Amino acid sequence: MEMVSETKVWDGLHQQFTHSSSRCQCDMRFAVFLPPQASQNNRVPVVYWLSGLTCTDENFMQKAGAFRTAAELGIAIVAPDTSPRGESVADDESYDLGQGAGFYVNATQAPWSQHFQMYDYITHELPALIEANFPVSNRKSLAGHSMGGHGALVIGLSNMSQYQSISAFSPISNPTQCPWGKKAFTAYLGANQSEWQEYDASHLLANCHLAPPILIDQGDRDTFLKEQLKPETLQSAATKSGVNITLRMQPGYDHSYYFIQTFIDEHLRFHYQYLRQ
Amino acid sequence: MEMVSETKVWDGLHQQFTHSSSRCQCDMRFAVFLPPQASQNNRVPVVYWLSGLTCTDENFMQKAGAFRTAAELGIAIVAPDTSPRGESVADDESYDLGQGAGFYVNATQAPWSQHFQMYDYITHELPALIEANFPVSNRKSLAGHSMGGHGALVIGLSNMSQYQSISAFSPISNPTQCPWGKKAFTAYLGANQSEWQEYDASHLLANCHLAPPILIDQGDRDTFLKEQLKPETLQSAATKSGVNITLRMQPGYDHSYYFIQTFIDEHLRFHYQYLRQ
Repeated sequence: MEMVSETKVWDGLHQQFTHSSSRCQCDMRFAVFLPPQASQNNRVPVVYWLSGLTCTDENFMQKAGAFRTAAELGIAIVAPDTSPRGESVADDESYDLGQGAGFYVNATQAPWSQHFQMYDYITHELPALIEANFPVSNRKSLAGHSMGGHGALVIGLSNMSQYQSISAFSPISNPTQCPWGKKAFTAYLGANQSEWQEYDASHLLANCHLAPPILIDQGDRDTFLKEQLKPETLQSAATKSGVNITLRMQPGYDHSYYFIQTFIDEHLRFHYQYLRQ
Repeated sequence: MEMVSETKVWDGLHQQFTHSSSRCQCDMRFAVFLPPQASQNNRVPVVYWLSGLTCTDENFMQKAGAFRTAAELGIAIVAPDTSPRGESVADDESYDLGQGAGFYVNATQAPWSQHFQMYDYITHELPALIEANFPVSNRKSLAGHSMGGHGALVIGLSNMSQYQSISAFSPISNPTQCPWGKKAFTAYLGANQSEWQEYDASHLLANCHLAPPILIDQGDRDTFLKEQLKPETLQSAATKSGVNITLRMQPGYDHSYYFIQTFIDEHLRFHYQYLRQ
């Protein structure tokens, strides 16, 4: 693990690291915010933030304005990259496939399967690395935006004992039925759509009987809302399975980080209810 | 004036515009944050934010996390670009001269003098445009970072009746005596250093008898501190003239927007004391 940068912010530290990932078989970068409360004698809980298409570890850290409240509550934030990257890593010229668009799945198809193992990376390898090397506890929650909201919901619903709570901004709620998801899943998982279901939050939510607390915010001026995001499908799935979720339509807001910065404090306070011992 | 974008944030609006500048003789872009309190019947005061080298109207708006407090207090924020831009505008291949590096002066030397009239643009043209087209009052303050901290101090100290207060992060405090300033002033103003003095905050502060309230924050881990920024010169000038300034050295902080986001709330609350009627 090699430190790329370290910057003081809100009395805590923002740090970037690269490390050699065994699951993704390449160097991966991530960023961490450590609140001032964090120390070896006071291990703090962690919110893992999963970003959307085209993002790196930097977008959320620079634009979300999350550190003020994270520093107040004593929550660490970990922001991984959205895919493996590098010259030797498969890529596609479009923004919604390949590097920057890992979709938080374990790819099974060539040329993606060698490196694009983001589901395992986020679920297993990264938390183990974080808990071994930083003053954090094993209490953790998931949050994300768009493709990362999909990732947070899918990983949280599939690993319920591991996460205290899940939140999402503008998640891709039913990827098996939208253009972004169909394109990515066809490439990464192949044409057999039954293989896609385990990565569809609406499918998972329709077929579970309990779930961690879930908070979702969605702007009603989001240009991706109807074609790509489909939160109504997620709400229907929750109703079908009898699981309670909080889905809030936020009038006038779009898909940008300006939307995220407006509500990130509420998401952190939501997670804090469940993260504190 | 043409709108480039409009985004809801913290119940207010972030907007970007381009307009044809008579002073800079080219199209100029700026961004404005309008808090939810702003209306034709409730004109709000304005903080003008002047950015540093290489920045556009976007850096502060995306990275400073300022809107939460601006929305709470009912303050509009206007962020101009840092120079004229365009294919027909003079430029230099270095990051600290030409486009993105206007230094808030009126250039007198070719090839810069045709477009690089940033002092007049910020001091006269832009506020007139803003006050004619937005629900704002004529009460205004200046804030800025690095080159923009220099701009805020120089413009505020030279136009005291126009501004209620001045604040700066990591300002270039004595540009006539640092490499960035010497390079820019030589290019824009010529070799006669007596022409430079009116754009040097330490010179202005040493020779005034009163000044608007001034707040400055400076990180002591800022890599530009000793060679380029020289806040101690500004403090000496204030002591010499008997003007009170608040200069705070912030331990551990660097030159980045992570530093700005940590203290921007305090700067907005500082300005608010003087902006409210």
